[in-house]
Amino acid sequence: MSTEKRLDGRLPHELRPLSFEPGFAPHATGSVLACFGNTRVICAATLEKRVPGWMREQGVEGGWITAEYSMLPYSTHDRKARDIAKGRLDGRSVEIQRLIGRSMRAVVDLKKLPGYTLWIDCDVLQADGGTRTASISGAYVASQLAVRRLMADGVLAESPFTDSVAAVSVGIFHDLEIADLNYHEDREASVDFNIVMTGGGQYVEVQGTGEEATFSSEQLARLLDMGKHAVAQITARQAEVLG
Amino acid sequence: MSTEKRLDGRLPHELRPLSFEPGFAPHATGSVLACFGNTRVICAATLEKRVPGWMREQGVEGGWITAEYSMLPYSTHDRKARDIAKGRLDGRSVEIQRLIGRSMRAVVDLKKLPGYTLWIDCDVLQADGGTRTASISGAYVASQLAVRRLMADGVLAESPFTDSVAAVSVGIFHDLEIADLNYHEDREASVDFNIVMTGGGQYVEVQGTGEEATFSSEQLARLLDMGKHAVAQITARQAEVLG
Amino acid sequence: MSTEKRLDGRLPHELRPLSFEPGFAPHATGSVLACFGNTRVICAATLEKRVPGWMREQGVEGGWITAEYSMLPYSTHDRKARDIAKGRLDGRSVEIQRLIGRSMRAVVDLKKLPGYTLWIDCDVLQADGGTRTASISGAYVASQLAVRRLMADGVLAESPFTDSVAAVSVGIFHDLEIADLNYHEDREASVDFNIVMTGGGQYVEVQGTGEEATFSSEQLARLLDMGKHAVAQITARQAEVLG
Amino acid sequence: MSTEKRLDGRLPHELRPLSFEPGFAPHATGSVLACFGNTRVICAATLEKRVPGWMREQGVEGGWITAEYSMLPYSTHDRKARDIAKGRLDGRSVEIQRLIGRSMRAVVDLKKLPGYTLWIDCDVLQADGGTRTASISGAYVASQLAVRRLMADGVLAESPFTDSVAAVSVGIFHDLEIADLNYHEDREASVDFNIVMTGGGQYVEVQGTGEEATFSSEQLARLLDMGKHAVAQITARQAEVLG
Amino acid sequence: MSTEKRLDGRLPHELRPLSFEPGFAPHATGSVLACFGNTRVICAATLEKRVPGWMREQGVEGGWITAEYSMLPYSTHDRKARDIAKGRLDGRSVEIQRLIGRSMRAVVDLKKLPGYTLWIDCDVLQADGGTRTASISGAYVASQLAVRRLMADGVLAESPFTDSVAAVSVGIFHDLEIADLNYHEDREASVDFNIVMTGGGQYVEVQGTGEEATFSSEQLARLLDMGKHAVAQITARQAEVLG
Amino acid sequence: MSTEKRLDGRLPHELRPLSFEPGFAPHATGSVLACFGNTRVICAATLEKRVPGWMREQGVEGGWITAEYSMLPYSTHDRKARDIAKGRLDGRSVEIQRLIGRSMRAVVDLKKLPGYTLWIDCDVLQADGGTRTASISGAYVASQLAVRRLMADGVLAESPFTDSVAAVSVGIFHDLEIADLNYHEDREASVDFNIVMTGGGQYVEVQGTGEEATFSSEQLARLLDMGKHAVAQITARQAEVLG
Repeated sequence: MSTEKRLDGRLPHELRPLSFEPGFAPHATGSVLACFGNTRVICAATLEKRVPGWMREQGVEGGWITAEYSMLPYSTHDRKARDIAKGRLDGRSVEIQRLIGRSMRAVVDLKKLPGYTLWIDCDVLQADGGTRTASISGAYVASQLAVRRLMADGVLAESPFTDSVAAVSVGIFHDLEIADLNYHEDREASVDFNIVMTGGGQYVEVQGTGEEATFSSEQLARLLDMGKHAVAQITARQAEVLG
Repeated sequence: MSTEKRLDGRLPHELRPLSFEPGFAPHATGSVLACFGNTRVICAATLEKRVPGWMREQGVEGGWITAEYSMLPYSTHDRKARDIAKGRLDGRSVEIQRLIGRSMRAVVDLKKLPGYTLWIDCDVLQADGGTRTASISGAYVASQLAVRRLMADGVLAESPFTDSVAAVSVGIFHDLEIADLNYHEDREASVDFNIVMTGGGQYVEVQGTGEEATFSSEQLARLLDMGKHAVAQITARQAEVLG
Repeated sequence: MSTEKRLDGRLPHELRPLSFEPGFAPHATGSVLACFGNTRVICAATLEKRVPGWMREQGVEGGWITAEYSMLPYSTHDRKARDIAKGRLDGRSVEIQRLIGRSMRAVVDLKKLPGYTLWIDCDVLQADGGTRTASISGAYVASQLAVRRLMADGVLAESPFTDSVAAVSVGIFHDLEIADLNYHEDREASVDFNIVMTGGGQYVEVQGTGEEATFSSEQLARLLDMGKHAVAQITARQAEVLG
Repeated sequence: MSTEKRLDGRLPHELRPLSFEPGFAPHATGSVLACFGNTRVICAATLEKRVPGWMREQGVEGGWITAEYSMLPYSTHDRKARDIAKGRLDGRSVEIQRLIGRSMRAVVDLKKLPGYTLWIDCDVLQADGGTRTASISGAYVASQLAVRRLMADGVLAESPFTDSVAAVSVGIFHDLEIADLNYHEDREASVDFNIVMTGGGQYVEVQGTGEEATFSSEQLARLLDMGKHAVAQITARQAEVLG
Repeated sequence: MSTEKRLDGRLPHELRPLSFEPGFAPHATGSVLACFGNTRVICAATLEKRVPGWMREQGVEGGWITAEYSMLPYSTHDRKARDIAKGRLDGRSVEIQRLIGRSMRAVVDLKKLPGYTLWIDCDVLQADGGTRTASISGAYVASQLAVRRLMADGVLAESPFTDSVAAVSVGIFHDLEIADLNYHEDREASVDFNIVMTGGGQYVEVQGTGEEATFSSEQLARLLDMGKHAVAQITARQAEVLG
Repeated sequence: MSTEKRLDGRLPHELRPLSFEPGFAPHATGSVLACFGNTRVICAATLEKRVPGWMREQGVEGGWITAEYSMLPYSTHDRKARDIAKGRLDGRSVEIQRLIGRSMRAVVDLKKLPGYTLWIDCDVLQADGGTRTASISGAYVASQLAVRRLMADGVLAESPFTDSVAAVSVGIFHDLEIADLNYHEDREASVDFNIVMTGGGQYVEVQGTGEEATFSSEQLARLLDMGKHAVAQITARQAEVLG
């Protein structure tokens, strides 16, 4: 494992300071401000008594979890126009919110959300790389907080969660394999991976992309391994916060 | 002046606890979390080197200030669908963001923002009545913080502000004339006013509406007076925060 | 009261020639062409046997009144692009149609429109300032005509109207306080008020804006007073037309 | 030629009362209210100093004529939702406005509108069948009025018109071949033709449709002949109005 | 009849090589690739167990046929942007798909499609003039194939077809009256007709347009006659393919 | 390696019959019909002399490659509504077209497309699983054909390609690890991977998703290996076709 220092002083495999601030959006059923260094995302989970149209039409039992992701206009250094100003959700946001939804559904037994939709909202307050992995990691905490409250209130009989879920980015930056890329590293990286795993060490999603570049089988194996260790640390932090 | 107590224990003319937390969105040029009781609005001001198309086409000199207002989906007790999910900005948001923009422009000399647009973003994190008046009051603080930073950085030569600006709601709730209505009061009020005034005590905007009701000249006069005193307190709080 | 003459020869408090031409759109339930000088607005009221979705969902009894406002492309000196060509309603139109709807609902007992929506359409045929106040004043006449026809036809058992409603603009133009501003005056005015009142002299709505300017308590009081007298004249004219 | 009477008392080939009321929309360059019986259409022509993007890009010389067609919500017995409320122009309106534009361009030398676009707006105030043919016939009068004013004002050096243009509907209603169908006839007609011709007797456009029906060569020939005579009468009326 | 040769060697009345390739889109109920020379259109007919909303609301019995038309981006020499990229269907496509739908409905007894919608999709793979007439001619073959399969599968009890339908373009190109125009001829033509007829020789639709030009009664008569003979040849080819 | 047979008779690692039919869309610069069993995708590459706005604004040199992906309405057993009918591109299509674009750019030196955009269109004619991997594999062939023609025509001086690119799906279906999933297998698979690799054996993109399921490190390693061998076979087939 390389001991070369990164521009912000971190070792290659080292995560940024990580925190989850619960109760950030008090009107949501559960919420958290997830911070990975300067990346800060408001994650909120809200229960709605209603399932999507396709479930009703096809007579699918149980409930649903869906996610929406957005960058607040002031989350980036240059102001980012709102989706509504452009008239449509950009492709990147669509991809991210679909990923968040799939990640949550992988650790939930939808049968145990009978007739409900759990909405996961992730709004980026400050962006410095890794907003999607912070969103997934925070979405789990917000949803778990929501579920606990719904069980306490007698709305849900038992927890629909089968495991926890967390995510991290890994990549190759100037030939160095690193974890938890910040904006500068992400922008310059030749290879960029997002790894979503359960607390039990199973993969949920692996997305790796060469940005106008490619990568070998050996690099792929090392990046997957680095990601596994990084996710384990985030899982531990989630558990601490949830107590 | 009535001394009848309101449901939350306030006197009719009494404001809710008021605070402005600066630097809430660090990537904005200036930002603040404006709190009027449980109403909490993220206000951010961002400078862009560019003026709107109509100014370039008509050769208008100086700069521009424009505002965007949105309620985050988890700001309300029942989740509020995003504008982009509905495909359009709702009429209420359009009215509010136009009001915020006009209010700011009333205390700014646009000539002193040559070639720039100052974007004001107001995103409601938690809604409990009075989000538009909290937005205006917070927008002034965020903008003033932005201007100070731009002057410190040498981007602006002098401050474009000619005065401060703040806003409050007043209304009639079960025959009682009250200030700074919370959500419950606002919903039940027969008459609802939003009053925007400068630090110097001039009116910028008066918007009073009977909600399927009407009001007399005498009531109007008393509400305007109550609003004037309430704005003065908010102005004082803005000055404290800005130091 | 000032006796200074305005550019078009009117005294400061003097209204433009005012007329309401009934039956202008024969397929509407009630209609009128409302003329305030060169401002001409087609106002039509049409009954639909159906209430909005939110009333059905929330089980609200009674009926509803809603308004739509549009400027015909040839109503202005430079052709105004249609809303559909721009793909969305502009913010100003949204504000105006919401104001028209609220104004009408303030003088109507919605319980007496059981299961019905009364659509108010206001299309500006020629614009010379004050299109929103002409719209409100004409909308009342069109609606009253519609109601009379619906009562004659046995569709409505009794009139839902509790009073009449009319509106006027007042403002400050080169330091002169004036009523019923034409386009030129409106464009140059530093302060612009729209006042909506009932026939009984109660306020329904007061909207006053400093256009990149502010106004004092004294100015506000005088403008409100001028507006009250102006509305009374419009109310008288409505009564004459309705017979 | 049949002498069987129609429901409204007309002979098969007989037109409804026809009138053109000039100056209906004073802010347009030229305007007219075109009435074919109870079908009444506001036709307005407005000059804009600018050509469409494709002409600038392709370096096409001369000018352009384009048309927009809309039915006002209260023009029909059941209120018709606005295009903007549905978010898009309906297919029928698209077809009609393209037809109006082509009809006008067939009698205009676009080279003689150098750098200009002539906008033709047709808004149906009252619909009783034949709104598209009334629109075309009225559009010609409005445009001719606009051109005369532009020549008087020295904006145009010479008239771009090479001929006049007018249109009429003909069709088969319960086996009877008739001209200028009203709404009831149009709705029940098995075959429906719109015929656009010049004052000089040349065809500009022939659009004939069997509505879930078909027609023979002989019927086609007789309908074309009936249309020719009907257009000649409309042309004569246009000439009278234009003096 | 003129014997002057056209640029591609055809006589004035001569059609391009014509073919229908069945089964081109195997997942459709019926499909064909319709080729008129280099114009190639994928025509597919798909049955859906459901009628449009307006039929359900108005209680109209039977079924419906509707068409959608689109040009694939690579069907033209310069790439044509997709409708979704522009956010709306262009006016020309709207006109064409309405024409295809009407043409099919003219030869179908909708009562014999009880509760069903037959969707006709026409996607242009290669465009060289006459895409709308190729679409109609191919749509008939695809629909007939679909109907035969649905009857074989016992979904439909009897054929809803009352006749066949086919279409051709005719026009005037440099004073020569010609049939089945290719792209070059279509572009330069002063007059352009689309003629839709049944196998039995009845007209369904006649659409003739002077492109910034006009045409006489004599020209109209000759073009209609040329179209009639051309449609008869296409009808024969359809019959061969359908066996 | 398992020798268990799949429902369609294939061995677990066995690909479906694979073909590329060049010249399928003659008006494109290069085109191919890519078939993986019953999955058939029209892939077309078209050169445009123009780069995206962001490249011009930021002064980025070279050219660009972008992709659009769509399923034709009759490509699925139940007709799929067009994007334009729903008013927006669905999230899945957005993801796929972004993936196609990135895959192509990974093997192209954009500097060698100076001032050009190469548009890749992928339209699914028949869908039976693996449409995105067929699209990528076909897009490479279509683009290579386009480049050869552009070099032959002297438009491009040298080939921008640095390698070939191809893609395949692998996944876990009822505990069996399989390659090139058809629709039935894809729908039932618990884990679904898309693997994009160069001819030289480097990875371009790895996207693996547990569909409401998870997977272990060992499964991941075996799936990656199976994918590598499968891509090598597709690469060989591409080379044969390109000669």
